[in-house]
Amino acid sequence: MSDRTTIGVGMIGYAFMGRVHSQAWRSVGAFFDLPLAPRMAVLAGRSKERTAAAAAQLGWADAETDWREVIKRDDVQIVDICTPGDSHAEIAIAALAAGKHVICEKPLANTVAEAEAMAAAAATAPGKSMVAFNYRRVPAVALARRYVEEGRIGEIRHVRAVYLQDWIVDPEFPLVWRLQKDKAGSGALGDIGAHIVDAAQFITGQNLVGVSALTETFIKERPLATESAGLGATGSSARGEVTVDDAALFIGRMSGGALASFEATRFANGRKNAMRIEINGSLGSLAFDFESMNELWFSAGGGGFERILVTEPDHPYVGAWWPPGHGLGYEHTFTHEVRDFLEAVATGADPTPSFADGLRVQRVLEAVERSAADGSRYTNVED
Amino acid sequence: MSDRTTIGVGMIGYAFMGRVHSQAWRSVGAFFDLPLAPRMAVLAGRSKERTAAAAAQLGWADAETDWREVIKRDDVQIVDICTPGDSHAEIAIAALAAGKHVICEKPLANTVAEAEAMAAAAATAPGKSMVAFNYRRVPAVALARRYVEEGRIGEIRHVRAVYLQDWIVDPEFPLVWRLQKDKAGSGALGDIGAHIVDAAQFITGQNLVGVSALTETFIKERPLATESAGLGATGSSARGEVTVDDAALFIGRMSGGALASFEATRFANGRKNAMRIEINGSLGSLAFDFESMNELWFSAGGGGFERILVTEPDHPYVGAWWPPGHGLGYEHTFTHEVRDFLEAVATGADPTPSFADGLRVQRVLEAVERSAADGSRYTNVED
Amino acid sequence: MSDRTTIGVGMIGYAFMGRVHSQAWRSVGAFFDLPLAPRMAVLAGRSKERTAAAAAQLGWADAETDWREVIKRDDVQIVDICTPGDSHAEIAIAALAAGKHVICEKPLANTVAEAEAMAAAAATAPGKSMVAFNYRRVPAVALARRYVEEGRIGEIRHVRAVYLQDWIVDPEFPLVWRLQKDKAGSGALGDIGAHIVDAAQFITGQNLVGVSALTETFIKERPLATESAGLGATGSSARGEVTVDDAALFIGRMSGGALASFEATRFANGRKNAMRIEINGSLGSLAFDFESMNELWFSAGGGGFERILVTEPDHPYVGAWWPPGHGLGYEHTFTHEVRDFLEAVATGADPTPSFADGLRVQRVLEAVERSAADGSRYTNVED
Amino acid sequence: MSDRTTIGVGMIGYAFMGRVHSQAWRSVGAFFDLPLAPRMAVLAGRSKERTAAAAAQLGWADAETDWREVIKRDDVQIVDICTPGDSHAEIAIAALAAGKHVICEKPLANTVAEAEAMAAAAATAPGKSMVAFNYRRVPAVALARRYVEEGRIGEIRHVRAVYLQDWIVDPEFPLVWRLQKDKAGSGALGDIGAHIVDAAQFITGQNLVGVSALTETFIKERPLATESAGLGATGSSARGEVTVDDAALFIGRMSGGALASFEATRFANGRKNAMRIEINGSLGSLAFDFESMNELWFSAGGGGFERILVTEPDHPYVGAWWPPGHGLGYEHTFTHEVRDFLEAVATGADPTPSFADGLRVQRVLEAVERSAADGSRYTNVED
Repeated sequence: MSDRTTIGVGMIGYAFMGRVHSQAWRSVGAFFDLPLAPRMAVLAGRSKERTAAAAAQLGWADAETDWREVIKRDDVQIVDICTPGDSHAEIAIAALAAGKHVICEKPLANTVAEAEAMAAAAATAPGKSMVAFNYRRVPAVALARRYVEEGRIGEIRHVRAVYLQDWIVDPEFPLVWRLQKDKAGSGALGDIGAHIVDAAQFITGQNLVGVSALTETFIKERPLATESAGLGATGSSARGEVTVDDAALFIGRMSGGALASFEATRFANGRKNAMRIEINGSLGSLAFDFESMNELWFSAGGGGFERILVTEPDHPYVGAWWPPGHGLGYEHTFTHEVRDFLEAVATGADPTPSFADGLRVQRVLEAVERSAADGSRYTNVED
Repeated sequence: MSDRTTIGVGMIGYAFMGRVHSQAWRSVGAFFDLPLAPRMAVLAGRSKERTAAAAAQLGWADAETDWREVIKRDDVQIVDICTPGDSHAEIAIAALAAGKHVICEKPLANTVAEAEAMAAAAATAPGKSMVAFNYRRVPAVALARRYVEEGRIGEIRHVRAVYLQDWIVDPEFPLVWRLQKDKAGSGALGDIGAHIVDAAQFITGQNLVGVSALTETFIKERPLATESAGLGATGSSARGEVTVDDAALFIGRMSGGALASFEATRFANGRKNAMRIEINGSLGSLAFDFESMNELWFSAGGGGFERILVTEPDHPYVGAWWPPGHGLGYEHTFTHEVRDFLEAVATGADPTPSFADGLRVQRVLEAVERSAADGSRYTNVED
Repeated sequence: MSDRTTIGVGMIGYAFMGRVHSQAWRSVGAFFDLPLAPRMAVLAGRSKERTAAAAAQLGWADAETDWREVIKRDDVQIVDICTPGDSHAEIAIAALAAGKHVICEKPLANTVAEAEAMAAAAATAPGKSMVAFNYRRVPAVALARRYVEEGRIGEIRHVRAVYLQDWIVDPEFPLVWRLQKDKAGSGALGDIGAHIVDAAQFITGQNLVGVSALTETFIKERPLATESAGLGATGSSARGEVTVDDAALFIGRMSGGALASFEATRFANGRKNAMRIEINGSLGSLAFDFESMNELWFSAGGGGFERILVTEPDHPYVGAWWPPGHGLGYEHTFTHEVRDFLEAVATGADPTPSFADGLRVQRVLEAVERSAADGSRYTNVED
Repeated sequence: MSDRTTIGVGMIGYAFMGRVHSQAWRSVGAFFDLPLAPRMAVLAGRSKERTAAAAAQLGWADAETDWREVIKRDDVQIVDICTPGDSHAEIAIAALAAGKHVICEKPLANTVAEAEAMAAAAATAPGKSMVAFNYRRVPAVALARRYVEEGRIGEIRHVRAVYLQDWIVDPEFPLVWRLQKDKAGSGALGDIGAHIVDAAQFITGQNLVGVSALTETFIKERPLATESAGLGATGSSARGEVTVDDAALFIGRMSGGALASFEATRFANGRKNAMRIEINGSLGSLAFDFESMNELWFSAGGGGFERILVTEPDHPYVGAWWPPGHGLGYEHTFTHEVRDFLEAVATGADPTPSFADGLRVQRVLEAVERSAADGSRYTNVED
């Protein structure tokens, strides 16, 4: 391990996603045998003072106030993009053009056009690229995928996915950037709906090929946020329009013929982060709920569901951590993500989910918005 | 109680539904103070011998082989229809014309046209009529309705209902009557989808006013059943076409603006009778799963979900039964149903769900089939 | 079935237990093919008027005000004892002496001496006898027993049983008969502790052979009940001493070497009827909670626990009832009990649990009280 | 934060506990505002090569092969003891004598005599000391303590605690150090039983003052381990005697009068790390299971249990981490532990649990062993 090569990382953004990515970069080497040791070279943010403070706290060696500087640096080989969706395309394409490897937070972009440009750039660039659908690296989700691959649930008949939160139920919750279309692209749809579409496609190994959809914005106006900050942002007396969906509901078919339903909402009172997916096959079924992230429920058909505590050494990623029954948390999904990315960079493999996977999700999101607008079923999800 | 008047009941059909209705008529008087004591006068079936045997076992005083004879009898004031859907309209309309009160199993009919004729007959007949959506009388479902009425979850934002079974997952399961369109009208849609549509409308007090839908028949051919019997029917070597849906998926809006999703399937491996409904409101949420029928989950907003064991004396129907924690079973829903029907007959009130309610559900089922066929969203659910 | 012989039943007592036994006698023939058709001949109670009313409501053909008259009647072959424990011995012994078959509610008696006399009488009487530990007939509990017999969990290492209720948490709840030693014998110990001792012995097929115990009466005085009635009894201003335990806690060993723990309490706030038992073996484990009475949790070792919905046709007793997923309720355990009793009477087999089984439980209860009093471990549970 | 003082840490041992403590020291500063920044100065182990490799991987600046050297170093102010119990006393007493602050893994020692010496040393030493009962720092456990302190469950009536594992169910699992009395002191009793005794005392704020106990060693001989390693150790053909308990069961009373039961076992097939505790009070109840470590179940009395997802910003420790619904894992309990220890060191407060708390637990363990041996109830737990 002492003789492994190091690789420099530059991260853009240090809000929620930046904090969790930092913990991943900081911890990954202590648990996994890595072919490349990540060096936390530089953190970029807009405010000089605050970025420097964040870099110090989160363990980055240096700080920049312009992401372009990060891309120029020779000590940076990996660019980790943790900004809102409106800047993903510009940063990622520039980084790829500069020969860097790129991890980009999800959704890949705010529009299909941007996502197409990003996927095209990724296809020809020398660097590796990955979109950070971290839920693929929940051990229970990865185990579900393994079971499907092994044929343990047979031919897939149903996919049933919801992502339920309640953090904006209060009409006085302010108009943060996630509620503004120009910054976030869409609302619950792109933020959390994207996750369940990707998870469904990942676990089944199939694409979603047609959707009928409904979307809704329950609270049309909200207090302006005093800063475009996170959950704790306090409102002001002035109000602004909510320009994204509060909830999105859609049904469709997987490419193998299964019926599939999806719901993403921030108005499910009492549900905090209930990213749930159930898959029924001809031989068995699988069910998962992120609120109990260390559990996978499996039915072998005929009987009931077994609660598998996904903490055994032979479960995906788990052998690197603790003994059976000692569960992991949210942040571990990112540790697994950067571990797999480093592995791909070192071996020259293509990491997944790729920008093409991200584009595929983006096309679903766009079809959802079109169907919600005109009431038709869209089956033209290209591939 | 000794001086209450008796009322005669004639029941048509003695399969699954007939057995459970019989237990209801037999038991109701031992637990509820009834204004009218039901007398189990006569049971009708096709086979003389088997009907007589069933009558003896189930506690009916007499047996007939023609339902028309039941309607003619002076000792019958209530006609209880437990046959497949293809005969509901003819029997119910005749019984109402004969001045009888009518309880009819669900779905009300196999077509909207039949359901309209039945609702029209019910509207002018002197007798009372009810469609037997028994899940309304699960104490937990009735408690959910009470909470909504009391405003405890506020304005309704989401309805999320599924009815999951797996009894025909095996492709060798035979072609019983429930898989034949001429007898059953539709498949999972009318059999179990009807229940969740009614339950959603009951609990919210709102109608479903538009749907986009998908349906699927996963297994197109099955062995012919040796008799059009129940679950235990054995197949033969000859095969016939499955003419109903195996699963139906639809989304829509409640009349108050909530987003709603529904799924009915007999292919959810490992789910036996998972009739589930979750409702999210601006102030709180409710969740129910019939596989744990004595539980209602309630979130008062802010915190998590409380598991309410719906076995307290002040919960709907429960005071008539056992002490707290001593749960009820499936059949009790029917006991509650006939209790409420007898109460309505005695007081002259209109029992619910009415034939008009049944027609409303039928219109949803038809819109689902149209949307599944052409991919459009149908918002013309009349009222 | 029409030519099966009938057998007359006389029941003593019509409170909670009497009501549920009545439902069992009334329903059993409609679901099970019985060798003997029970006839509900006569109900005995102290008040002439109230007994007559109860008989009418519960379906008994006649009423008596002296249990001795029931025993004398020629149309009574089965005596069903549903009175408090202080009268069990006298009634049961007299009924057996009169040649009757006897079902007696649990605990068998209020003292070991009474229980010994009853077991002795049962051993020589021509009639059959059974003590009504109804939880043995919960399908999930019977399935647990089957799994143990089949060796599916291997050698038993641990038994962990609790019976948690909360109905007397309120200090103003009155001093009903169940809180008086002269009527009830003991408190939580005999009322609900007896059930878990019997269930543990039944499922494991082993006896509990030594105990160390603690008991407690948290509320020493309570309002006098206006009548020695049930749960709904209202208190008065006068107060009396609570002479039984509120809770009992004991540990011991099963005859096969397993460690076993038991807890019975009426002070587990929020637990309504949580009769729970978990058994760990060398090959697997079983877990049950009566608050979810249609579920059995099974671990085959290595993996997690499977939730078995005990509603399949091949599960004990279930084939007589409804399709998979349509759960049973509390009262069904009694229907199964009288079914098995009728079967035993008809075939000449000895029904279980026998009075000897009831005595065995009584000896455990006495050892618990002695250990709680002096702090010693008692291993002299005889057999 | 840049101007806070740093404090040097030296850790002894780098097996399971050492790995998780390292992650805590490495991460704590990124999430909590600390008064003192920990510096991971030196790691001590027996093998030079392996200790150096572990130090490199886990992030320690230096490595030593003798713990005495760690204590001598000027750049070490905190000594973190992660060795088996047989060396705790010697190391801790020496470290305290050298003026260091000490964190010591649990159980505090292998005997009461050792624990007394340690507590005595701690009482007079200038340094701070803490025994690492990490489960106190599970947010849900800390929230339970808060609820008890706020009086939300009233007077405590019952404590019901189990710690269930199954990692040595296989008789061929080898004789690792945790199964040897000279190294581990006791088996399940000291390893996991100690945790639930401490948790019960912590949450209730009361001591356990008397016990009746049973212990058992189900598998008397096991293959010798090829090295005294962790879970993955492979056995050899030679066999040795298991000199510790496989399971311990005990009941007693809390100092406030509640009845309490405890069970610690490594033979609960299917249970991986089920550290469970339920507390019933006069006004409500609390229940926790570490296998679902982000949940606390609370009953406010009267109704049922609410599942609180302990991921809200105002829950203990949680504000430092992620948004609601994004759960924590096992290792976070240690991060919270070192955070609180650093806070105590900086402010001069006495950290808890203290060595005196550790001694109190040790006395319970000894009383359990005595009671198990002679069958008496021991009430002489001193304080």
